[in-house]
Amino acid sequence: MKNIGIIVNGVTGRMGTHQHLVRSLLAIRREGGVELSGGERVMPELILVGRSEEKLKRLAAEHGVARWSTSLEECLASEEYPVYFDAQATARRFPDVKSALESGKHVYCEKPLATSIEACLELARLARERGRKNGIVQDKLFLPGMRKLKRLVEGGFFGRILSVRGEFGYWVFEGDWQPAQRPSWNYRKEAGGGMILDMYAHWQYVLEGLFGRVKSLLCHGAIHIPERVDERGVKYPCTADDSSYGMFELASGVLVQLNASWAFRVYRDDLLTIQVDGTEGSAVAGLRDCKVQHRSFTPKPVWNPDVPSALKYRDGWEDVPDNMVFDNAFKTQWEMFLRHVAEDAAFPHGFVEAAKGVQLAELAYESWQKRQWVDVPRLAEV
Amino acid sequence: MKNIGIIVNGVTGRMGTHQHLVRSLLAIRREGGVELSGGERVMPELILVGRSEEKLKRLAAEHGVARWSTSLEECLASEEYPVYFDAQATARRFPDVKSALESGKHVYCEKPLATSIEACLELARLARERGRKNGIVQDKLFLPGMRKLKRLVEGGFFGRILSVRGEFGYWVFEGDWQPAQRPSWNYRKEAGGGMILDMYAHWQYVLEGLFGRVKSLLCHGAIHIPERVDERGVKYPCTADDSSYGMFELASGVLVQLNASWAFRVYRDDLLTIQVDGTEGSAVAGLRDCKVQHRSFTPKPVWNPDVPSALKYRDGWEDVPDNMVFDNAFKTQWEMFLRHVAEDAAFPHGFVEAAKGVQLAELAYESWQKRQWVDVPRLAEV
Amino acid sequence: MKNIGIIVNGVTGRMGTHQHLVRSLLAIRREGGVELSGGERVMPELILVGRSEEKLKRLAAEHGVARWSTSLEECLASEEYPVYFDAQATARRFPDVKSALESGKHVYCEKPLATSIEACLELARLARERGRKNGIVQDKLFLPGMRKLKRLVEGGFFGRILSVRGEFGYWVFEGDWQPAQRPSWNYRKEAGGGMILDMYAHWQYVLEGLFGRVKSLLCHGAIHIPERVDERGVKYPCTADDSSYGMFELASGVLVQLNASWAFRVYRDDLLTIQVDGTEGSAVAGLRDCKVQHRSFTPKPVWNPDVPSALKYRDGWEDVPDNMVFDNAFKTQWEMFLRHVAEDAAFPHGFVEAAKGVQLAELAYESWQKRQWVDVPRLAEV
Amino acid sequence: MKNIGIIVNGVTGRMGTHQHLVRSLLAIRREGGVELSGGERVMPELILVGRSEEKLKRLAAEHGVARWSTSLEECLASEEYPVYFDAQATARRFPDVKSALESGKHVYCEKPLATSIEACLELARLARERGRKNGIVQDKLFLPGMRKLKRLVEGGFFGRILSVRGEFGYWVFEGDWQPAQRPSWNYRKEAGGGMILDMYAHWQYVLEGLFGRVKSLLCHGAIHIPERVDERGVKYPCTADDSSYGMFELASGVLVQLNASWAFRVYRDDLLTIQVDGTEGSAVAGLRDCKVQHRSFTPKPVWNPDVPSALKYRDGWEDVPDNMVFDNAFKTQWEMFLRHVAEDAAFPHGFVEAAKGVQLAELAYESWQKRQWVDVPRLAEV
Repeated sequence: MKNIGIIVNGVTGRMGTHQHLVRSLLAIRREGGVELSGGERVMPELILVGRSEEKLKRLAAEHGVARWSTSLEECLASEEYPVYFDAQATARRFPDVKSALESGKHVYCEKPLATSIEACLELARLARERGRKNGIVQDKLFLPGMRKLKRLVEGGFFGRILSVRGEFGYWVFEGDWQPAQRPSWNYRKEAGGGMILDMYAHWQYVLEGLFGRVKSLLCHGAIHIPERVDERGVKYPCTADDSSYGMFELASGVLVQLNASWAFRVYRDDLLTIQVDGTEGSAVAGLRDCKVQHRSFTPKPVWNPDVPSALKYRDGWEDVPDNMVFDNAFKTQWEMFLRHVAEDAAFPHGFVEAAKGVQLAELAYESWQKRQWVDVPRLAEV
Repeated sequence: MKNIGIIVNGVTGRMGTHQHLVRSLLAIRREGGVELSGGERVMPELILVGRSEEKLKRLAAEHGVARWSTSLEECLASEEYPVYFDAQATARRFPDVKSALESGKHVYCEKPLATSIEACLELARLARERGRKNGIVQDKLFLPGMRKLKRLVEGGFFGRILSVRGEFGYWVFEGDWQPAQRPSWNYRKEAGGGMILDMYAHWQYVLEGLFGRVKSLLCHGAIHIPERVDERGVKYPCTADDSSYGMFELASGVLVQLNASWAFRVYRDDLLTIQVDGTEGSAVAGLRDCKVQHRSFTPKPVWNPDVPSALKYRDGWEDVPDNMVFDNAFKTQWEMFLRHVAEDAAFPHGFVEAAKGVQLAELAYESWQKRQWVDVPRLAEV
Repeated sequence: MKNIGIIVNGVTGRMGTHQHLVRSLLAIRREGGVELSGGERVMPELILVGRSEEKLKRLAAEHGVARWSTSLEECLASEEYPVYFDAQATARRFPDVKSALESGKHVYCEKPLATSIEACLELARLARERGRKNGIVQDKLFLPGMRKLKRLVEGGFFGRILSVRGEFGYWVFEGDWQPAQRPSWNYRKEAGGGMILDMYAHWQYVLEGLFGRVKSLLCHGAIHIPERVDERGVKYPCTADDSSYGMFELASGVLVQLNASWAFRVYRDDLLTIQVDGTEGSAVAGLRDCKVQHRSFTPKPVWNPDVPSALKYRDGWEDVPDNMVFDNAFKTQWEMFLRHVAEDAAFPHGFVEAAKGVQLAELAYESWQKRQWVDVPRLAEV
Repeated sequence: MKNIGIIVNGVTGRMGTHQHLVRSLLAIRREGGVELSGGERVMPELILVGRSEEKLKRLAAEHGVARWSTSLEECLASEEYPVYFDAQATARRFPDVKSALESGKHVYCEKPLATSIEACLELARLARERGRKNGIVQDKLFLPGMRKLKRLVEGGFFGRILSVRGEFGYWVFEGDWQPAQRPSWNYRKEAGGGMILDMYAHWQYVLEGLFGRVKSLLCHGAIHIPERVDERGVKYPCTADDSSYGMFELASGVLVQLNASWAFRVYRDDLLTIQVDGTEGSAVAGLRDCKVQHRSFTPKPVWNPDVPSALKYRDGWEDVPDNMVFDNAFKTQWEMFLRHVAEDAAFPHGFVEAAKGVQLAELAYESWQKRQWVDVPRLAEV
């Protein structure tokens, strides 16, 4: 059993606490660490870092984490912690990740890595020069539904893939007669809000991870709900896009269409669903489930609106069985990253990938503004 | 009881026979004609016209139609038939409709009226100058599902409409291991094939009829299946688009997204489904059915992919009841046209509308080629 | 964290112990007090007061309340307790509340505040003169079902509200062959019993809180079961009404009909159900649940008693989802009152409202006796 | 087999054709007439009478009725037809029924017999003086659900009946975004419309038939929808009540509450439901079904709104089985009337009863206007 010290910075928020601390790192500890290829195990040893002593103290106590600190500098200076994890607010990430790399830490980060492609690439270069491992959270790729899709792609189920159509979103209440279920900064451009900024980074790695490189894109954004009521009950104008309608051409020739909105009502199997059509078969994946229709049982529907359809179209699809236990998406990627650090196992989610996510969002805003397709240039090799 | 003579040209094909002759005109005859506002009834008296004597004879015999002719010229010359209907192949329509108008006939037609906007407008002008009624088939607007949508729009159900997303299509077999269920000319550009050419005329009147004028559009087409096998079992290259991905901005500010493909497998309620999201509620309509989710029962979903969703999202939608008997879509429009002829009842589906459908398809091809949004100019008043 | 001392008088009964002590005040303590708008918290510090030392001692021990006293006088004299709560029998409430106000306490009370309008208004005036906060329990307004109704009203779901029909009640056993589930004093006029006296105070705030001011009323009472068997197994004549049938005209023009009976068997979703019909939609609310039928999916039923109805009418209604966690109704109002005391937060349930409840019950008895509608005069401003 | 000639006047309307001609008289003919107590059978021989020759001819042809006439005078003069039936518009009924009686016919009528109590009683006196049988349609009493209620009353199921609560009605569309399903004259006072006028005649015989004489009543009417759109699509102001809220005291001491509205949405088992509560048990009847809860299985519910109710209250009721075939309600009463004529069998639905229905409606309007209970005087013996 080997220990591996991790500086865990910025997990006092809901998402950081829940997904990274409790469901990933502490869950790994409860299971006795991560098993490596040779059978040994690596146990994460954590120190929580943050700005509020009170919050850190309470969080550490609540979850039985022995160490915490308000001085990142001291932590980075210590040899005890070879890994730095950052889930802070975006604005603070770049300088702290940079310091961490300069202190010789391996670095794993929440997205976005930075607010510009250049800054991302600068960190990627720095990591390469210092020979440090680097990783970016790409959790959606590890959702059970997406992993089943990946399995289908790799198993050649689809034949030649023709098209991919997906939709993410649900109705976020306006905050007047029912409280909104998302924070108001999501709807303010100046606070870093916006659906495109949020989702295009996800679309990038989901598409590239499942279907290959994005060659060009067309994006149309919208502020469907122009006024909302904030946490204090005060009306505010929405300055950030709450919806995006996008198309993508992949290098493989596949045509992709992906929508995301906080002003859709959900008539789907799940909050995110992706349909893939191929010559040999089609699949529809949600967060956990995935259904397929192979061409062997594809029906020939008849157009006759004079009577109710005799075919219940969804009944002609079959569930893809789990065939394995799917662990929490965040935890799965954490385990990969720890193996990457501990024994140099493959980890295709580095800082260059982080830059691609930022790039796709930037190009999407450009396409929206220009009202035309834009190409996605390959990022210069780092 | 008044009779009204109709020259029925080109209904020996599957669609013409089935929808226009059997389910519309002969059904109206069986019901004792069309009732006018004053209580009198108008009975259609038919003469079938076509090029093949053999086919006409058989069709007339089979359906008990007394008269038929292979000479359109003679029919047009007769005063007995004040109405001309044309469901011929597109190429023959323009000259015959023109002759009919010049012979003083009222004219009702299958779409497209002609292959160019200019030709459509020429016929519209001619009809106006001669004071002849004119109409174009816009059957999808009379599907029960679309009429329920219309009812919801008129009843103010949606509040402010934000977005419309629809999808048409199904898998058309390639013709190799199973016969294709559509004719091969659909996939040949040179034969008048192409999804965009076919569907954009439909999208035009559906959008304008339900939600208002189209201001601009973005279209992306694709030939997903580049090679098919024709009716004789011979492989042929597909030269016409089999799929289209489109967005539309309406004058009202609504954002619309409509896909159509013969290479989609159907994981939907119906072969055509349209979802409308508005501030007060949303609806999903198919050919016959329509479901709604009002904001009063819109759920607040929780994102937790670690367990299967407790919400079955589709269960939270309610069926819109019929509350009336919906007749065949084609027959309904035929009855409207006959009332239009007999007593000048309103009929908003004239030749200028036909031109708009052709226009939208032309612009869609332009947008695809230019890879950018294009504006939809208003057609000069006829 | 601020403490707030509360004299808790008269909670040794089932209802007081359960709802006010355990589910409200002690539950608030377990949660670390009530959070104020600025983020600080107020913690209730309790002293239990009553007449029976034995009962108090046992209650305090059982629930871990440190302090109790049989001398209300001493408690009122102490500066440690700025808040007085009264859940005693009705007859004792007026003098004790008066003393509490004169001692400078803020006062919160179970209903009825007193047995006459004048007495209620006297206490309201006293509270105003002394500048003391005052509140009356109006728990039914905080039932999840009623809060969903309120949400629907505020969200404009109903369009113009036309009518409200509600029914409360169930079968209270007569006490002969099965023990009665309510105390015998409920059925004795001289002991303060009577359905009208009990329920009209509730009807008053439910109607005013949800739909606006009551303008006039018609009430018919009944003693459906004239003889019952009491707790000791002795027959007694019932002198108080066990049932009431009422109609109300609201200032808004809405017509309301509300029945309450201890001699109804329950063929409803819940012990209390209220149906609201409006131009745009209708709702049926119970204690927790609420279902809606929007006009978009209102069916057109056909009257044909020769065959069983094809429509299952209740299936055409949709559940209003919770979309939030509904806390105990009493606790919710306690939190509001504590915020009212601690930071002057809004609290629309003061002593003048208490007077209105007493007024409505008095007028109901008058209407019953006169067999006619009576107007509800506005109470003179305190 | 004896024949009995019947003059059938005014059945060209939907209701007359359907219920009286097709489902009653022609159905009786198909069954070989009505069986009398001695085993012989009486066969109705019909002559259709009306004002429109065309309509009569078509109706007679369609249903295979040999004889029809536009001259009531001639028919009344003929000895061939001892029975006269009248389903004309109300205004025409009094003079024609009077002539029929004076011509020596037995008379059976749709309701209302006449527009005033006095006119009804005049016809009742005339019938008595001439010794003619007389009957008024009281179909609701013959609905399977009401007959099951009657069976329960006669079987002593309820013990002492305490209360009766019923509701009739459904949503009648306003006619703007969906066509109304009732004729516009229903909502015009001047055309004989109004819910009270229509329903109080029904309430009268249902109450008296099931539970005994009405002693006093309180009625409140409303025009909930003040403006509708008529058959021609034109807006009109509604001048007749579309809703009524009533209470009744019966001679037996039972308290009754009955609502009727064309502005209620249906959250009930049926379009008309009546709940009866008695000391021994309760019942809820619809048009066809009836459910009971006997005191032996009456539950003791617990009020706890903090958790969803464990009791599904409607599950604790049991279906009353048919135990016989229930024939069409109109036909059943026709058979009774024909036996009454043929062999003087009992028929408690004579013209005095018709007068009582008119009386109850008149008193209901008076009560509404006076805003108080009114007594129902016994009608002077005819």
